[in-house]
Amino acid sequence: MDPSDATPSAELGFDVFAARCTSRATMETITSRWGALTLAALADTPMRFGELRRRIGGVSEKMLSQTLKQLEAGGLLTRTVVSETPLAVEYALTDAGQQVAAAIMALIDTVYRVQPAVDEARSA
Amino acid sequence: MDPSDATPSAELGFDVFAARCTSRATMETITSRWGALTLAALADTPMRFGELRRRIGGVSEKMLSQTLKQLEAGGLLTRTVVSETPLAVEYALTDAGQQVAAAIMALIDTVYRVQPAVDEARSA
Repeated sequence: MDPSDATPSAELGFDVFAARCTSRATMETITSRWGALTLAALADTPMRFGELRRRIGGVSEKMLSQTLKQLEAGGLLTRTVVSETPLAVEYALTDAGQQVAAAIMALIDTVYRVQPAVDEARSA
Repeated sequence: MDPSDATPSAELGFDVFAARCTSRATMETITSRWGALTLAALADTPMRFGELRRRIGGVSEKMLSQTLKQLEAGGLLTRTVVSETPLAVEYALTDAGQQVAAAIMALIDTVYRVQPAVDEARSA
């Protein structure tokens, strides 16, 4: 059996296993270290830069800024200036971003569920 | 509202937003460029090294080998020598690995669904 048969949406013509498919690049953007956490953080509510930075432990200003630009370029979030002085920008997921964020949240929940087994394997 | 409230499994005591939580490391292993694709490739059936390498476009021997070691160390897959001469090794997901792979497959399906919107945003 060709494993791609198991992926119903393969009929849309995308194949993440193919190195040059555009879906591969999207997968890498949304599963990058900070990309996945940024999407998850915005899943419930729009946030400003400073709020996001406090929410995502360990992210630098530079990395968060780069990540937000990548997600915006992919149409997954919007950037809205809510105040000019002092400058305040709000980041909110688009409809596509919400769909991806929901799948990321489900993945995080799965990680929490298997984490005891992972911790046990690592200490063995 | 604290966004972590939205994550039911947070009651297990893990928090991927915390830089030092072990779940953060697991998240990075399973969402690494090759980690996610390796889990997805093994979701349907165990595979040998060469089969995996052919399935995952663009992966080098070295990167695939490193990825398999990381996933094995985290208890997400098992490595079974099925023949000594010539050496043949089969990689299969553990129960924890299957759970993670299912969530990765759902994420990939979501990517396929939003990819037309992403492609459109990128060409805009």
